[in-house]
Formats: sequence, structure tokens, C-alpha cells
Amino acid sequence: MDYQKILNTIDEELSYRDVSGKVASYIPELAKIDPRKFGMHVFCGDNQHFSFGDSDELFSVQSIAKVFSLSMAMRIMGEDLWDRVDVEPSGDAFNSLSQLEYENGIPRNPFINAGALIIADILVDQLENPEQELLDFVRKITQDNSINFDPKITASEKETGYRNIALVNYMKALGNIKCDVEPVVDFYFHLCSLAMSCKQLAQAFMLYANKGKILGTEEQVLTPVTVKRINSLMQTCGFYDEAGEFSFEVGLPGKSGVGGGIVAIHPEQYSVAVWSPILNEQGNSSLGMKALKRLTSLTGVSVF
Amino acid sequence: MDYQKILNTIDEELSYRDVSGKVASYIPELAKIDPRKFGMHVFCGDNQHFSFGDSDELFSVQSIAKVFSLSMAMRIMGEDLWDRVDVEPSGDAFNSLSQLEYENGIPRNPFINAGALIIADILVDQLENPEQELLDFVRKITQDNSINFDPKITASEKETGYRNIALVNYMKALGNIKCDVEPVVDFYFHLCSLAMSCKQLAQAFMLYANKGKILGTEEQVLTPVTVKRINSLMQTCGFYDEAGEFSFEVGLPGKSGVGGGIVAIHPEQYSVAVWSPILNEQGNSSLGMKALKRLTSLTGVSVF
Amino acid sequence: MDYQKILNTIDEELSYRDVSGKVASYIPELAKIDPRKFGMHVFCGDNQHFSFGDSDELFSVQSIAKVFSLSMAMRIMGEDLWDRVDVEPSGDAFNSLSQLEYENGIPRNPFINAGALIIADILVDQLENPEQELLDFVRKITQDNSINFDPKITASEKETGYRNIALVNYMKALGNIKCDVEPVVDFYFHLCSLAMSCKQLAQAFMLYANKGKILGTEEQVLTPVTVKRINSLMQTCGFYDEAGEFSFEVGLPGKSGVGGGIVAIHPEQYSVAVWSPILNEQGNSSLGMKALKRLTSLTGVSVF
Amino acid sequence: MDYQKILNTIDEELSYRDVSGKVASYIPELAKIDPRKFGMHVFCGDNQHFSFGDSDELFSVQSIAKVFSLSMAMRIMGEDLWDRVDVEPSGDAFNSLSQLEYENGIPRNPFINAGALIIADILVDQLENPEQELLDFVRKITQDNSINFDPKITASEKETGYRNIALVNYMKALGNIKCDVEPVVDFYFHLCSLAMSCKQLAQAFMLYANKGKILGTEEQVLTPVTVKRINSLMQTCGFYDEAGEFSFEVGLPGKSGVGGGIVAIHPEQYSVAVWSPILNEQGNSSLGMKALKRLTSLTGVSVF
Repeated sequence: MDYQKILNTIDEELSYRDVSGKVASYIPELAKIDPRKFGMHVFCGDNQHFSFGDSDELFSVQSIAKVFSLSMAMRIMGEDLWDRVDVEPSGDAFNSLSQLEYENGIPRNPFINAGALIIADILVDQLENPEQELLDFVRKITQDNSINFDPKITASEKETGYRNIALVNYMKALGNIKCDVEPVVDFYFHLCSLAMSCKQLAQAFMLYANKGKILGTEEQVLTPVTVKRINSLMQTCGFYDEAGEFSFEVGLPGKSGVGGGIVAIHPEQYSVAVWSPILNEQGNSSLGMKALKRLTSLTGVSVF
Repeated sequence: MDYQKILNTIDEELSYRDVSGKVASYIPELAKIDPRKFGMHVFCGDNQHFSFGDSDELFSVQSIAKVFSLSMAMRIMGEDLWDRVDVEPSGDAFNSLSQLEYENGIPRNPFINAGALIIADILVDQLENPEQELLDFVRKITQDNSINFDPKITASEKETGYRNIALVNYMKALGNIKCDVEPVVDFYFHLCSLAMSCKQLAQAFMLYANKGKILGTEEQVLTPVTVKRINSLMQTCGFYDEAGEFSFEVGLPGKSGVGGGIVAIHPEQYSVAVWSPILNEQGNSSLGMKALKRLTSLTGVSVF
Repeated sequence: MDYQKILNTIDEELSYRDVSGKVASYIPELAKIDPRKFGMHVFCGDNQHFSFGDSDELFSVQSIAKVFSLSMAMRIMGEDLWDRVDVEPSGDAFNSLSQLEYENGIPRNPFINAGALIIADILVDQLENPEQELLDFVRKITQDNSINFDPKITASEKETGYRNIALVNYMKALGNIKCDVEPVVDFYFHLCSLAMSCKQLAQAFMLYANKGKILGTEEQVLTPVTVKRINSLMQTCGFYDEAGEFSFEVGLPGKSGVGGGIVAIHPEQYSVAVWSPILNEQGNSSLGMKALKRLTSLTGVSVF
Repeated sequence: MDYQKILNTIDEELSYRDVSGKVASYIPELAKIDPRKFGMHVFCGDNQHFSFGDSDELFSVQSIAKVFSLSMAMRIMGEDLWDRVDVEPSGDAFNSLSQLEYENGIPRNPFINAGALIIADILVDQLENPEQELLDFVRKITQDNSINFDPKITASEKETGYRNIALVNYMKALGNIKCDVEPVVDFYFHLCSLAMSCKQLAQAFMLYANKGKILGTEEQVLTPVTVKRINSLMQTCGFYDEAGEFSFEVGLPGKSGVGGGIVAIHPEQYSVAVWSPILNEQGNSSLGMKALKRLTSLTGVSVF
């Protein structure tokens, strides 16, 4: 299949002008991004790379990074992890707090904020230097030592992260947080402020398209069962309130972030990352969703 | 692949004695079923049949039939259907009514009861004799004219269906039900009381494994896009509060019913139906879940 | 105290022009009312009557009548009544249905719709001809045999009462409704469609200002303890989401209806009824609230 | 009326042995209290004092102190206060967080925790030394300079107050908290740890029975309208989920705390405080509720 030709078609067909919506503004630093940015990178299982646009530019990966912290926690905890966080779609945001109370502080899945904060608590509890080990993990699976946090984003998250601090305190009251609140949210704010390009994200997520092995070195970083679990979670819970729509339109496991990035993988075929900062009402990149839909449409392949 | 050998292994390994849980009791007729029943049937794309146990015995398909009514409504309404029901996982049951109010009477997906009642309203509104046309549709895709409703189950549903009647009245108050309440719930109670065997269910669901064509006649009953949408919905919403778990453990689109039946499909490979009336806490067949997990484990294939 | 002078002051000071808001439109018949209507009637413990404006004109009392049905049910059931309905303020409307589910079908108090429907179920269960006995009760305590239902309002309620029918079915599913759904909602729709004037309402509610005795005949219709309970409920739960505000601004036990009527009582002093059909955002008569606030302000008396 | 005889009767009739229930355990220090403690103090408008039992012993007033902070905030803010907190009963606890979200961070009333935290934010924002000024206010209205915080309780609150810290962070995210989180919760934990005896509480609450004037000095500390508002709030919102029951059984405005104290006032007649640490299911003192019910029953007076 000529992936570059397909990407060129997507690049020609789609433009930021076609989508309404807004760049994320919940933290001031994100609101400064140029809404015209648009890039995409496909990394194939035969080690070939294809791309267009701003695919080498760094952006804030935000919730996409929850896949990395989850992977680290699953390596440490194994199946015991699921005593502290569930694996079911959350349905909707509006009652997430009463849901937490009703379910005794067990978040519905590790990709909603409450769940990702439980994962942060586990890593802070188990690791000596969780921020550094997170960087080490991401650099390793990406095979790129330049990856780092964006300190402006980290600082902006900290200044405005009251809702997440509320969640951690609330779950601590319900008995599901072991560590002190501050290091947990501090790790979480670092996690969300990882800066990566589409190319780097595609390289990192090849791990999940390749049954847990780094393509090239063939080092087995995650077990195939762990990868199956994570892919399954990305399929059912990776897109907030748009998980069902993404599952139908694109048909691949994936994860989005409010920085405008989306990653998706086709097991044993390819990993793909796309970036456009304009978000739709559900908080996912408008242009990114369209681009991925065109990709699976033009390649003629989905899991269904 | 030797499917019969795999089924024999499952038959030998698993027994109703291994599972705790209870037969559905929400309607009196269902509570009378023998909990020891256990059968399974695999129907392959090359037209081969494999089975064990009580796979030819009729049972109440209950919510599995929602896939049939949804298919009929999609044929009639096309994309307009999604103005009246959403395609997202519902998260949880406990606040489904406040969710409905919050979202102006638009159910989260067509497989929760509220959504299936909207589908019933559409069919009652659009069809002259909806019960008969439902039978015609199911008999056609199953290629079996003996399929019928179980009148005892229908009567039992009617006597105790206050919660569903409440849902229809509530959605009518919110403006999302067109017809009178009685014919809508009457159709719905008939739908849930379809009696089919594992073999018949596997035959019917081959349609969804075969891109919308009846295997053998190759008649295109549903478009490939409709089938992709339905499979995507079965993947994300087919198992109540256990959708995420099923997606991971089995990794196939599927649908369960409180009669103890489960169907699943592997696109372009096979359809499968299993029946055991003992339900787990989430309302899905305990033994059925185990059997399907063993099937994908022994065949080594899932969508992830 | 010169009540007539006080009423004249209120009549001069206040006008329907001063209030924004809308006439109730949830049933078509109510939407036809002239928004300029305004009347008030005070009935004193020394048997004197004072009034102004449209105080003799009949209007739809709506929820005010829930006090009558509650009184009848308390006479029949005594303290056993409180096993089926609670006595606490409901807080808010938006999650009333999930509240019902959470609390196993026990409504928060007898003045929210769910609670009044439980009362209706009790009366339908216990009385041979509940509509007639309701009329008998109201005519007796009002000492006025002309009081009747408004058949147009009853019919309009029936045509559009899907939300109330939903509530009854839902509570029946939860085990807190004994009778068939239809006679229960039928009684309820009759109850809400009682037509009375301000004068008649003030006469009826003198019972609650006079420790359960009809003023004049001194017949003890309700025990003093029953009256104390009902007055306490009117104080804490009589005004939907505005109970706290009314308790402060007026400081008397009272009950409002979406027909624009409000009644209030000052124990051992007077009963008062006011009518103006324009409703505020909470569903209470805007002008009626102002008029009662002026009344307690000018008489210098509240319970606090 | 011979109040001392009435109190003696209550003392003889009631004992901690008559009530089941448990001492508050949500903070470790409270769990250490002797459950046999029982005292009561009535302070009459003619300056007479009546009491029995442990009425001079200090205990943790907990939520009763919310009346003091509310009074201070109303003096500072006047009617503007009600832009930030509502005056309606809250209905129930289980979904208080989703209620906050639904209502944009405006708590239902100043006596639920969220509301009292808003009051704390106001005082921290407006006062130079809020803890000291709180002590000054309480000492002044009680006419007793010995009143102080219990530092063990303050420390215990701080160690376990995650739910309250969550609430403040959550409301800060929703824009209804001005100050930093720490001083707000620090003030709140001090407030709850005020230690007072029944006698001191009865003296303090005479202010609310005496139209805002200190009995004796006749200094007008609060306006009559402010007192009317506070009494109205105590009537409708003073007893968590038991406000309706208290309103009926006792019929006086009052406020309870999980330390086992209850205060109530009869306007222009008396103030009363009772203490017994064993709590009923709603979190109010079991014996205290019974004692107050006997008091209004034996004196034959309630507001209804």
C-alpha cells in the first residue's frame, strides 16, 4: 500500500479552515498554540515512515501520555492494578464525581482523569523518581533521548489544576490514594506536559502495534497480554464521550489529548499520530478525527 | 483450524458447577429455566457448523434481539436514526434516568433499554405490522421459518414491564417518542421474547460476520457500512457494565441477553452463540463469558 | 389589625406589570389564562373576611390540592403513611428520578409529584370512590358545595401527563404502588384540576390555622398532631425549589400551585390565598410571593 | 412556666441507655468521647438559667459553629452574600458534588459543608485575622472570654479533612473560591473545633432568640432581618437529612453538630442547648433530638 500517497491525499483534502471549534483554553499556555498547525505521521511495521505537514513539531501530548503511565503501572502491578481502577467506559463526564462516590472511589477506567490520578499515585508510591523513570520509559520506547517535559505547560497545569487536586483529595477521603496529594498531582501535571512530535508519538506507539516489542531492537517491553489490555482500553475508552463514534468512524484503538494530538494503532500493521489543535465539542481534535477516518477509509482496513 | 476439537475442549473444561450466580428472575417465566443448560454453536464463513450440548434448544434471546430491531431501523432511517439515539457507551445503569433528562431524552445507545424503546417506536411508526415484519426479518437472515415468539415470555414481560413503560412515558414527555405508548412497549415485549437456539442465533449473526450478506444466497440485506456500525456498537456497548471486560477478554463484537445467551462474531471468519442461564453480577451469562474467552484464546484470534 | 387596609395597600402597590415571567404552559388549558388576573383573600380566626381583586374567580388550584389528599390519607393511614413517603425537603428537581431509584421508590415528601402519586395510590386503594370523597372532603372543610373539578383541565392533564405516568410506573417497578397505574393517575389528574377561588381556598385552609377544626361548626376534622405535621411540611417543602426563600421572606407555612395560586396560614390567626398566574423561574406565582411578603411585613408577624 | 421542673423530668425520663447509635468517628479525636455524657441548658429571655447533667462540660461544637461564621459573613456582605451561596434545603448528601457542578459551584445553603466553606473563604478574604475575630465574636455574644478552639480537634480535622479540601478545590475550579485553598480550610477546621458547653451555647444563641441583641447589654450585634434569615435557615436546613423531621417533632429553628450538640431557639422566649454524643443515622444526637422533642411537648409551644 502506498501510504505516502494516501497521506498526500489527506493533506490536500483537509485544512484547518474546514473545521470550526476552538483550541483548548483550560490552561493558558495551551491557548497560545497556532490553530493552523496540522501534521501527520505513519510508522509501518516494516520500519517505513510517512508524513506530511508539521509532523516534526513538538506539541503538548496531554492525555495521550496516560497510555505511557498506565503501561508502567501494569508492569509493576500486574492484575492487582484492577482492584483500584476499573476497565469500563465512563459514559459521561457530568456525573463523574457522584459516580466515584457511588463506586467507593474506584474510577471507571484509567483514561478518565480520576483513573489516571490513581495510576499516578501507584507510580509515585512504587518508584524512586517517577518523573525521571517516565522520561526514561518514553525515551526508550521512542528510541529518542531528546523527549522532555515542557516546563511552561507544567507550570500552567499547576496553577489551574484545582479540579484534579479536588479529585485526588476526594479519592483519598474514599481510601483509594496512598501517597500525599502533592507529589501525585505533581507527577500528573508533568505527565500531561510531555512534549512530543507526531513522529515521536508514532514511534512510541509502535510498541502497541507490535505486541509489546520495540521495533528494531525487538526488546519485549510489555507482555502481549498487557498490550492487548491497553489496546482494548484505547478502543472502548480512548476518546472521552466520543469513544463510540471513533470506534465506528475509524475502527482502531487510539487515544486523544486536548493538545490536539491523536494516536491510533493497527495491530501488526502501523502506528499513526496526527496533530491539529482545533478541538470539537467532545474535546478531540476535529481535523485529527477526519484525517484518521480518511486514513482507514483510503487503506480500506479497520478492525471491524 | 479444528473448531470441533476446540468446542469439545470447552465442553469438557467448563460446567455450570464452576459458576456461582443466578438465573434471571426479573420476569417469572425466565426464573423457571434449568440452570444446568449449556450449549454452543460456531458457524464458519466456509459454511461449516460445529456445536456441543444444548445448542439446538430454544431459549429466550432477550436483549440479543435488539440487534435485529436496530438493523431494521437502520435500513429504514439511515443516518437520520442518530438524531434520536446516540452511539456512546452508557457507563452505568444507576443514573440512566437522570442521564436521559440531562440529555433531553436522547438515549446513550440503541442497546440500553431506553435506546431499544426508541428503535421500537421507529418500527411501530414506520411499519404496518411490526411484529410480523420482525419475524420475517429474523426468519430470512436465519434461513429458518420456524422461529417465533414465546407467548408465555411475552405475557410475563407485559405483566411486569413497569420500568420499561416508565421509560417510554418519560421519553414521550421529553418529546422523543412519536407513537402511543402501548404499541411501542407491546412490540418491545415481543422483541425480547423471541425464542431461538444457539444454532439459529449463529446463523442469524453470520450476516454481521459476512458484511451484510446472507451466507449461501449472498443476498445483501444490510450495507457493509450498516454492518460496520452495528459491529462497532456491539464492541463498545453490547455487554451492559461489562463491555470493557468483554472487549478485553474476548476481543470480539458481541451481544448478550439476560436469558443467558451470548452471540459474538469474528468478521469474515465465524459467528458464534453460547447459552447458559446462570448470570454474573453484570447480568451476562457467566459460563457463556468463559466459553467465549476460551474460544478466542484457543483459536488465538481477537481483533486486537 | 386593619386587614382590609393592608390588603388595599398591597392592591395599590402591586400589579402584574411589575413582574416578568410566564403563565404555566405545561398543559395547554393553563396557557389560556389571562395573565392580568390578581386577587387575594384573608380569612381571620374571628370569622372576618377581607379581599381585593379577582378573589372570587375560580382558577385551577393544581398542587395546592395535594394538601387535601395528604390530609385524607393521614386520616386513613396515621403514622403508617410515613413508611411509603418521607418528610424531607427534596432539594432539587433535576435528579428526582435517580433519587427515587437510590431511595428504593420512597419519595422525599408528599408534595413533590412522586409523593403526591403515592398519596393518590393510597386513596384509590382505600376508598370506594376517591374522586367523590375528595370533593366531599373539600366541600365540607370549605363549607361550600359548589366546588368541583374543571373537566377541561382534567382532560388536558390526561393528554399530556406522560411524566407523571412514568413516575407511577417507575415506583410500581420499585414496589411502592399497589393499585393499577390508570386509576392512580386518573385520580391525580382530577386532584390537580380542582377549581377554587381565593375565598374558597382561604376558607378551606382555615382548618390548618385552627388546629384541625372547621371554624364555626368547630367539628374536629383532623387531629392537632396531623395539622402540625402538615403545617411543618408546608413550611419545609411547600414551594419546590423556593422553600427556603419563602420560609424567610414570608415566614409562614404555605403551598403553591402552577395555576398561580398560593395559600398560607398563620396558626390561630388567619388563612390567606392569593392568585396571579404569572410564574417565576421556580414555578411559583411572582406577584403572589410579593403579596404574601408584603402581608407579613405590614402585619409585622411571622413565625420567626 | 417551671422550666427547671421540665428539665428534671427530661433528665429522669431519658438516658443514653435508651438510644442505639454511635459516637462520631470520622475524626479520631471525636471517637474518644464518653458516650454517657448528657447535659442540657435553657436560657430564658428573662435572664433565668436552667440546666441538668453535663451542661457545663466543654465539647466540640462542630457544625453548630457554622451559625457564627454565617452571622459574621452576613454582617460584612449583606445581601451580596446570596450570590455565592443559596438558601434552599439540599435534599440529600449522596450527590452533593454533582449538584455543585450542575449549579456552577453555588452551594445549596450555608450549612452544608460546601456552603460553610464559601463562608470561610469570605471571612478569610475580608478579615485580617479570621480565627481571632471568630473567637472575639463568639466570646462577645456569649459574654465569656474563656471560649477557645480545642487544638487536638483542630489537628485531627486537618489530618483527615480530604473531603473538605476536595470541595474547596472543586469550587475554586468552578470559580467560587477567591482565596488560596489552605487558609480557607485552615479557618474551617478551626471553626469546627470550637469547644463550648451547653451553657455557653445557650448564652450565644440567645442572640438569635432576642432579635440580634445581646441580652443584658442590649447591644445590637445583628440586625433583626439578619436574625430572621438565619432562623429561617436553621428551620429549613439545620439538620442535614432530618430537617423535615426536626421541624415537625420540635418545631423550632435549630442547628446540630456531629459532636453531639444541638441548639434551638424559641424567638423571644428562650434558647436551649443539649449534648449527648451518640448519633442517629442522620448524624444528629439521638438523645438530644428526644430531649428537645420532650421540651416543646412539655412546654406546649412550637412555631406551628
